[in-house]
Amino acid sequence: MSNTPTTTKVHNYSAGPCILPNEVFQQASKAVLEYEGTGLSILEMSHRSKEIVAMTENAVALVKETLGVPEGYSVLFLQGGASLQFYMSALNLLKVGGKAGYIDTGTWSNKAIKEAKRIGDVQVIASSEHKNYNYIPKGYAVPAGLDFLHYTTNNTIFGTEFFHTPKTDSLLVADMSSDIFSRPINVADHDLIYAGAQKNLGPAGVTLVIVKDSVLGKTNRDIPSMLDYQVHIKGESMFNTPPVYAIYVSMLTLEWLKKNGGVAWIDKRNQQKADLLYGEIDRNPLFAGTAEIEDRSRMNATFVLNDESQTDEFNAMLRSARISGLKGHRSVGGFRASMYNALPVESVQVLVDVMKELERTKG
Amino acid sequence: MSNTPTTTKVHNYSAGPCILPNEVFQQASKAVLEYEGTGLSILEMSHRSKEIVAMTENAVALVKETLGVPEGYSVLFLQGGASLQFYMSALNLLKVGGKAGYIDTGTWSNKAIKEAKRIGDVQVIASSEHKNYNYIPKGYAVPAGLDFLHYTTNNTIFGTEFFHTPKTDSLLVADMSSDIFSRPINVADHDLIYAGAQKNLGPAGVTLVIVKDSVLGKTNRDIPSMLDYQVHIKGESMFNTPPVYAIYVSMLTLEWLKKNGGVAWIDKRNQQKADLLYGEIDRNPLFAGTAEIEDRSRMNATFVLNDESQTDEFNAMLRSARISGLKGHRSVGGFRASMYNALPVESVQVLVDVMKELERTKG
Repeated sequence: MSNTPTTTKVHNYSAGPCILPNEVFQQASKAVLEYEGTGLSILEMSHRSKEIVAMTENAVALVKETLGVPEGYSVLFLQGGASLQFYMSALNLLKVGGKAGYIDTGTWSNKAIKEAKRIGDVQVIASSEHKNYNYIPKGYAVPAGLDFLHYTTNNTIFGTEFFHTPKTDSLLVADMSSDIFSRPINVADHDLIYAGAQKNLGPAGVTLVIVKDSVLGKTNRDIPSMLDYQVHIKGESMFNTPPVYAIYVSMLTLEWLKKNGGVAWIDKRNQQKADLLYGEIDRNPLFAGTAEIEDRSRMNATFVLNDESQTDEFNAMLRSARISGLKGHRSVGGFRASMYNALPVESVQVLVDVMKELERTKG
Repeated sequence: MSNTPTTTKVHNYSAGPCILPNEVFQQASKAVLEYEGTGLSILEMSHRSKEIVAMTENAVALVKETLGVPEGYSVLFLQGGASLQFYMSALNLLKVGGKAGYIDTGTWSNKAIKEAKRIGDVQVIASSEHKNYNYIPKGYAVPAGLDFLHYTTNNTIFGTEFFHTPKTDSLLVADMSSDIFSRPINVADHDLIYAGAQKNLGPAGVTLVIVKDSVLGKTNRDIPSMLDYQVHIKGESMFNTPPVYAIYVSMLTLEWLKKNGGVAWIDKRNQQKADLLYGEIDRNPLFAGTAEIEDRSRMNATFVLNDESQTDEFNAMLRSARISGLKGHRSVGGFRASMYNALPVESVQVLVDVMKELERTKG
């Protein structure tokens, strides 16, 4: 599979915005010239035209079908990314005088906690900070009486991922920005799910929100229109002008996923890619993974060279193989291989081959 | 000038999202396949890659050059549209215990007033509501001691436009969503300018903010990170993942404007288009304009058929001429011809010809 129509294939390990399917780029490019026989570019079409309304409805339907969203939940396409949701989620669910619990698994959890604290009483229920977030907390006690419990399903920077759903008697809120659509999930376990699109769903500029209608409107708080989920539900994501093109590219990506077999199919493929790379990290004496094995993210594999003096040589070999985006985040150092849905297995094999080649060179 | 590469040309009068230059569509389509020799689609590139950082810096520079933005002002590309700015502008400028003044010129002013009232004391300084917003208030007294005065430079729904800058001893805030880049403006007269991109700047999904740095941080109010201009200034519009593609298309549109002669050039062309259409509205006995002549918007011409029974026939003729998007907003009725920057003079001539043809049919 070629990522682009160029002859020089790039293996795109960018942490996000990130690789999307090649056929999505082809269709998305055509729509900028003309959208489905309308004589208009999709960029110049009213969001209230019948074609764009139908496209948006199709995107919502595909989200519902792909994730098995139950009745009683609304699907919204908003702006502002997960960063705005950090504040907005608490604003809509944290009651005046209430309290919320957060599981702290790294940078993004911390940002969510910071914004929620502006609104009310926030308790950190569990944290892996003391080990530089290299594991997912388990066996913690969730106090009764929370308005909601918040967790971050995948931690892009530290390379950890939840493979269980936290248990709570309160509402459950999940930031699924970086692993949504990578595997089956049980939406019904959650009351609010939000995700910036720019990993497995689409380009930067749109945010997916899945919210249980019945939990809203209960905070006894004045909420600005643009930050009120109920306003956006009533407006069917068109209370204000939506980011049409980003929704369109997301819709195309969901069509690609559906056509290939949905989350059941991509779940297997993502496991195959993770097994391939982590297998090499564990086998190759030059490398070491940074996250606890049972909590390793299938989306972002973080690892280091045991001998840092080999970094320049490894980087040069990566460049020769046209592997891009592998530099680790400064919080962890080393390398980060982001293997989102659209990254082909072949790209992972190329990376593994380079790691083996470095071993041969040094052997 | 063809709007699209199809043989069947559409005259796109959409009120927004709206027509953009054809050459922008061509370049924007190519970048979705591959961005400038990188081997990557622009949709899969990290916002922190050197190419996208350079592109964003270029977009900022083009805004500054095109509008003559003075030193001491920051240019931001944000998300959430003018609708989020209604709240955010007041949150950043309305002091605890202070008050703000608003000039009420229609639907969008009203929305801004509604969101600002959540934050503090808001006074409507002048309003044209009593005449269904068919004129721009003048000669009103602005009280002393306001934190800021807010106005909406162009009113898309009612077809009116400010051709003067309100005088106040307070800060001055302008929603310029629908006429920014249509003519020269004096940025220095303003402390905050905001504009949803989807008229003269780019596609839906990005919001331009121009703010005087020295007026910020003075409200004595806790501001959520994503709603704090100072946070976005510090992050150079990358505090969170920006809407890369919408910024890119905006950058291309600004390049098109610059190449053709900037706002001095488009100002003349917009006047030419407005003269052509309003000339026909005033000459043709079948039609009447709805806005006061001196306040008529050059972006959105609102008019009615004096005999409503001719509506179906006129609409059929518009369809035959491939004129789209001319239906008036329900608040005014009749017709609305949105003549944003990229609409060719030729498209206005086609509309005028149809109006003349209707007159001949009925004559």
